[in-house]
Amino acid sequence: MVIDNSFYMKLALDEAWKYQGVTYPNPAVGCSVVSKSGEILAVEAHKRAGEAHAEVEALKSAYFKLTNDGKILDISSSFEIHEYLLKNHNNCFDGVSLFVTLEPCSHIGKTPSCATLISKLGIKGLFIGSLDSNKEASGGAEIVKNANIHVETDILAKECGELLTPFEMWSEKRFVFFKWAQRLNGTVDDGIISSEKSRTFVHAMRDLCDLLVVGGNTVRVDRPTLDARLVGGRAPDVLILSKTEEFDKTIPLFGIKNRKVMIMDNFSIFDNYKNIMIEGGENMFEYSKEFVTHYLSFVSPSFGGRENIVAQKCKFDVLNILQDEQDIIMWMKQADNRGRD
Amino acid sequence: MVIDNSFYMKLALDEAWKYQGVTYPNPAVGCSVVSKSGEILAVEAHKRAGEAHAEVEALKSAYFKLTNDGKILDISSSFEIHEYLLKNHNNCFDGVSLFVTLEPCSHIGKTPSCATLISKLGIKGLFIGSLDSNKEASGGAEIVKNANIHVETDILAKECGELLTPFEMWSEKRFVFFKWAQRLNGTVDDGIISSEKSRTFVHAMRDLCDLLVVGGNTVRVDRPTLDARLVGGRAPDVLILSKTEEFDKTIPLFGIKNRKVMIMDNFSIFDNYKNIMIEGGENMFEYSKEFVTHYLSFVSPSFGGRENIVAQKCKFDVLNILQDEQDIIMWMKQADNRGRD
Repeated sequence: MVIDNSFYMKLALDEAWKYQGVTYPNPAVGCSVVSKSGEILAVEAHKRAGEAHAEVEALKSAYFKLTNDGKILDISSSFEIHEYLLKNHNNCFDGVSLFVTLEPCSHIGKTPSCATLISKLGIKGLFIGSLDSNKEASGGAEIVKNANIHVETDILAKECGELLTPFEMWSEKRFVFFKWAQRLNGTVDDGIISSEKSRTFVHAMRDLCDLLVVGGNTVRVDRPTLDARLVGGRAPDVLILSKTEEFDKTIPLFGIKNRKVMIMDNFSIFDNYKNIMIEGGENMFEYSKEFVTHYLSFVSPSFGGRENIVAQKCKFDVLNILQDEQDIIMWMKQADNRGRD
Repeated sequence: MVIDNSFYMKLALDEAWKYQGVTYPNPAVGCSVVSKSGEILAVEAHKRAGEAHAEVEALKSAYFKLTNDGKILDISSSFEIHEYLLKNHNNCFDGVSLFVTLEPCSHIGKTPSCATLISKLGIKGLFIGSLDSNKEASGGAEIVKNANIHVETDILAKECGELLTPFEMWSEKRFVFFKWAQRLNGTVDDGIISSEKSRTFVHAMRDLCDLLVVGGNTVRVDRPTLDARLVGGRAPDVLILSKTEEFDKTIPLFGIKNRKVMIMDNFSIFDNYKNIMIEGGENMFEYSKEFVTHYLSFVSPSFGGRENIVAQKCKFDVLNILQDEQDIIMWMKQADNRGRD
């Protein structure tokens, strides 16, 4: 195995993918910090909007590793971490390199500019995966370069681009992904398949989705609630794909406040939404194919059930695999994707 | 993410799993080398019998990274790498730590003793996953300790134990694993599923298996050769599980020289073999369940086919996941394994 800039960036990438889908309205970003002598000091990711950016989380961990100053561990506000680091770094970051999947932000939003912070800590090198196409946030590389820090871009550019794509699509127009849970033998029937942890993660995603799409049959058979109760989150609007509007309105999903439920036989309503999760089986997979760019599968390492997804042939490009406590979580694109790329 | 001894050992473990099944009569072993200042200098694995042990491969890579002396890259014989390192290390390994999934060997076999090499290079620390239960090879930790090197054992002991289990079972009695290829939707029909690279790896495994088990129906329908031609290897003996002995003897597997083909309706022949690969679908999965401890699945990230494995419910513990160019390769145990644990 080769230990090089790509290796350090891959660590940042894998950490960031763990939070793909739950960082809106921010992108998923990861950051590794490597010392002057080559020691990995930290690998962190941005976890959710309002919390510190990946670079700040990583600099915080690295600062503690370098100084053993435990006071910083009690600080979680991004503003305060920035201030604490600027005041107390005492050149501990001398010779340090940062590997960030995305260009550090230049603007002051919910948190101060990461580029400015990086440029003031005596850091030696900044290695960037993707440059930020967002006009408001871009320019971070310039700020850092102007502080005489060595800046390199395009480290694992393709992979860092794939990490960023869902956010970019969401920003530009909309992001539509198809999510399903299955056992290793491909089955989707016979009760709950995913672990509690996976289901909680899906609820965290629902909390940030504005539209959830399900099939009429699923609604009739499963009588779902389709909310985000496992994380105390917001229930997204629901589109039930169905030719008939006749549903038993005592099915829990109809009883959730502040949510619209639409029953339609097409996806025209997508125009009004930006972050759309489609949940379903083989029929929904086929119906939604031309609208979907990304696929998210929670695979339980088990056998059971009988009915597997039998769809038309298609190949996926695997963007990331994460082994959770139980489930294997795969983010994929269709290899012959008609969508963006 | 926490960067600690477990992190360095995990790198060694993942590297070693890539060669699980193709290192016989040696175990799969991985090794990371970390510099005095914490830089990862090398992560290597033992690749096949006759080639250098993991520690030697890793020390070779680390030596090159530390000295830039490219002459060592031309040496592949383990004896010569040992000699070269002993002669030329010039204290470059001062302060270095080794993370090895298995206790370094103490005996001189096809290669010189790794423990002796480690004890003579000025290395600071040796971190071991599993102690070697093999009497001939064990005692390496003692040798290294006696050279005043800091030795710690049981780093990711459980995971390093799982890596070693196939070899231990093979040594003690026999190792029996069930291998299959499937698409993500669980299907096993409709033509070739795995990538060329995966199929080549399976041939490398067959080369080291002494018995291959297949079902009678597979033989009739697929008319397979069941050899190791993709690696120019030896064809293992074949057991066709079948109630009838009537087979078309022009099916290629019958025409391979120096191989026994047995047709039986039971597994009693297992007593004569040590490394047994069972290939099959749901019927074979059920029939062989009580004889199998490990499962190896090559999952193609695609949809297609119709027939999925419909077996009795069972849960797997995932021991390792590797994403290859195309396929996802999973080593698993049954979670409720009746076999050794």
